[in-house]
Amino acid sequence: MASILRSSSASLRSAAHASATRSLSTAAHYFPNEPSGPQIKTQIPGPNNQKATAELNEVFDIRSLNLMADYEKSVGNYIADLDGNLLLDVYAQIASIPVGYNNPSLEKAAKSKEMTNALINRPAPGNFPSADWAHILKTGLLKAAPKGMNQVFTASSGSEANETAYKAAFIYYRQRERGGPNAEFTEEETTSSMVNQTPGSPHLSILSFKKAFHGRLFGSLSTTRSKPIHKLDIPAFDWPQAPFPALKYPLEEHAKENAEEEKRCLEEVEHIIKTFHNPVAAVVVEPVQSEGGDNHASPEFFRGLREVTKRNNVLLIVDEVQTGVGATGKFWAHDHWNLETPPDMVTFSKKAQTAGYYFGNPALRPNKPYRQFNTWIGDPARALTFRAILEEIERLNLVENTALTGEYLYAGLERLAQQYPNEIQNLRGKGQGTFIAWDSPTRDEFVAKAKTVGLNIGGSGASAIRLRPMLVFQKHHADLLLELIEKIFKL
Amino acid sequence: MASILRSSSASLRSAAHASATRSLSTAAHYFPNEPSGPQIKTQIPGPNNQKATAELNEVFDIRSLNLMADYEKSVGNYIADLDGNLLLDVYAQIASIPVGYNNPSLEKAAKSKEMTNALINRPAPGNFPSADWAHILKTGLLKAAPKGMNQVFTASSGSEANETAYKAAFIYYRQRERGGPNAEFTEEETTSSMVNQTPGSPHLSILSFKKAFHGRLFGSLSTTRSKPIHKLDIPAFDWPQAPFPALKYPLEEHAKENAEEEKRCLEEVEHIIKTFHNPVAAVVVEPVQSEGGDNHASPEFFRGLREVTKRNNVLLIVDEVQTGVGATGKFWAHDHWNLETPPDMVTFSKKAQTAGYYFGNPALRPNKPYRQFNTWIGDPARALTFRAILEEIERLNLVENTALTGEYLYAGLERLAQQYPNEIQNLRGKGQGTFIAWDSPTRDEFVAKAKTVGLNIGGSGASAIRLRPMLVFQKHHADLLLELIEKIFKL
Repeated sequence: MASILRSSSASLRSAAHASATRSLSTAAHYFPNEPSGPQIKTQIPGPNNQKATAELNEVFDIRSLNLMADYEKSVGNYIADLDGNLLLDVYAQIASIPVGYNNPSLEKAAKSKEMTNALINRPAPGNFPSADWAHILKTGLLKAAPKGMNQVFTASSGSEANETAYKAAFIYYRQRERGGPNAEFTEEETTSSMVNQTPGSPHLSILSFKKAFHGRLFGSLSTTRSKPIHKLDIPAFDWPQAPFPALKYPLEEHAKENAEEEKRCLEEVEHIIKTFHNPVAAVVVEPVQSEGGDNHASPEFFRGLREVTKRNNVLLIVDEVQTGVGATGKFWAHDHWNLETPPDMVTFSKKAQTAGYYFGNPALRPNKPYRQFNTWIGDPARALTFRAILEEIERLNLVENTALTGEYLYAGLERLAQQYPNEIQNLRGKGQGTFIAWDSPTRDEFVAKAKTVGLNIGGSGASAIRLRPMLVFQKHHADLLLELIEKIFKL
Repeated sequence: MASILRSSSASLRSAAHASATRSLSTAAHYFPNEPSGPQIKTQIPGPNNQKATAELNEVFDIRSLNLMADYEKSVGNYIADLDGNLLLDVYAQIASIPVGYNNPSLEKAAKSKEMTNALINRPAPGNFPSADWAHILKTGLLKAAPKGMNQVFTASSGSEANETAYKAAFIYYRQRERGGPNAEFTEEETTSSMVNQTPGSPHLSILSFKKAFHGRLFGSLSTTRSKPIHKLDIPAFDWPQAPFPALKYPLEEHAKENAEEEKRCLEEVEHIIKTFHNPVAAVVVEPVQSEGGDNHASPEFFRGLREVTKRNNVLLIVDEVQTGVGATGKFWAHDHWNLETPPDMVTFSKKAQTAGYYFGNPALRPNKPYRQFNTWIGDPARALTFRAILEEIERLNLVENTALTGEYLYAGLERLAQQYPNEIQNLRGKGQGTFIAWDSPTRDEFVAKAKTVGLNIGGSGASAIRLRPMLVFQKHHADLLLELIEKIFKL
């Protein structure tokens, strides 16, 4: 199955352009019960939504609320609210719904005996794994393991996934410094660790990139550089940041300066690794900076990053929390890079509906038990959800669908950009499935207006509009989306 | 329902002693399909377990593995392995199973339409809460809210629960310093926060206690002081620790010196708050230090801690991740303290099968949206599990059962301690439901031998044996447990 999950390969890609329109137009609708378009019956939020929101406000912070949803009435690519409105959803729970609302295959998995067992007998898998845990991993999570990786540590959220990966990196770094897995801790290390002081609690660091987003807990937030509002007032580790390439668009017109910009950033990465006062144990990077404004870099840049980290004995952690599981037209976004050696760890969450990190090097298992441990280590119920998602992706060939639909959609957006050059600036994500974005000088207005025409769409960074449709987004949805976008421009 | 969940009140307590034996002995068995005792058919681990463990080892770290379990065959208080062995389980997934394996009421909830909806349409509740989210909270999580608390922020794990509470504390502290919720951030704050420097990323701290355990991620681990193996090689914040009272047993023989010890610890807490170089935003404390060796303190100590924190404008976070949800004979362990004013936040996880923190003060909602936020903010599927658990607790009066069974069990252990004074030292947890522990000079041997007589039991700290049975642990289980303990002493 691993090969099928990676079916959107180079050879497929070269043939894709020719056959894209034909194969897309003849593809059956995955959700025959979807409406033919959005249904708008009231202002949004309508009266029912307003009432329910006020009620929720009594017990739960609703100031970030976008739209209260009726998930029972949502279907496929359409999200329903409480007033009978049905919106085309290309935001998909912040890129977290992979195979459509109320997907019948997921429903079947949710009603299975295995799921009931996992829900009512939640184990502490580090101590008391279930008899079928290896089977669940092998037929699920590990089938999707990136090339060169055959182990997984499961977690409960994207932040937790990144932080456990960081912990593995720090343990690995100190183990190497100490002279290998058999070297014992010194008395000074064990004593000082208990009072949060060096050498037991070392001043090591994780290098991240400007505008990166890696999560919201204390370690992950120390690597997040998206917006002040995410970070203000929260203590942070003194960890370094490198510039992420600021590419100019269209790429083909700025090839030389973009290559120079990427070279400059890589040099800065290496400079920081060599000189930062808190030694760098690992570099963490998103294939596309997703919260920070949909910032892309070229495969060459990432191959260079792999070389720099290798050369300096620093681990490379690829954060695929938002890019993973098919949305870029490959199962993992870093599959686009053609790396000679795989990343050291790859973290995932969101569309996987569970979380964790993959790795291949057995030395990344800490040298003693209970160093990387917690009670739940994820949730087997959600591991089962991911398995069902993988089966659905394979059954419907959804990575290929996303590659082809993305190509079709991108071409349509290019046409729109020519027509509305002020509205669609720096269009990006070509060849990246439906992981497409552009800048808009009136982004917030655009996103607000979108609701009125029945479109649920999101922004990222300062001025980007980001597309995050599901993997079941098809050609007819792309046509509709292009129509709706133009309609919004004309409002 | 809240009152029913707190039914193990002071008046009940005084009547309990007299009626305990009678009401316990006549109570119906909650799980009629439980065996009458453990069933041991092979050595543990048996051949099937060994084979399956080797298989799991290929993809998952198994060095902390205790027993691979067959959860489909487990029932009530009994955990099944893969070789036909059935053990009385008084460890319960590190204190995380509340109402028994394969509880029929939970099974019904797992198969409900609501659960299926929550499993297959996982929302980002901060942006797109489900129509029934307020209802799920009000009929579930908030019914169990501690006295004085009417709001909840949900999370995915105990570590995440504590860290989001810490974030709320830091935001609140700086907001007060700044002059209230309407004071704007300075340019210097926003700029410095993006490079992890003061004043935007302030050098504030959380005060925890020696031997405390609050989790494994970077912020929570900085407050964890259980064992070096949990902390070594992981960067930590320069946060302070205070001594936790080291009480002497039996309590009635050491009343004066224990009171002095608690006074000394409180003085040290206040001294640290007044003098520590990184100002203390909050104190976090477990009602019983559970991983650190089952260390108890008196209600007077905790009332004193509430006074000290109030007096110094520092928040008090009570970490009920392990003590919460009934095991101490009250729904929340801090219900034993009779506080004049409630804690500022109470965190929960484990037996709740979900996680998060409760609070009452609306100023603990950060002054702007997206400051306390993440994609999943917990899992509605697990919020539904907790609701079903609460209904089961209420239906069967399980907090009262645990109070009475604990009292009966404690009396039995006191008798055993007289008979085996070397094996059972510092017996503690009187009046704390089944949250009972003692020290053993041969703890690890005891725990290992226990498997051979069909008992799954855990340790904590350096030498403690801790009891963490489920809330469905009844008098006949207590009788059996006492028998098995004596049997192990004689091995």
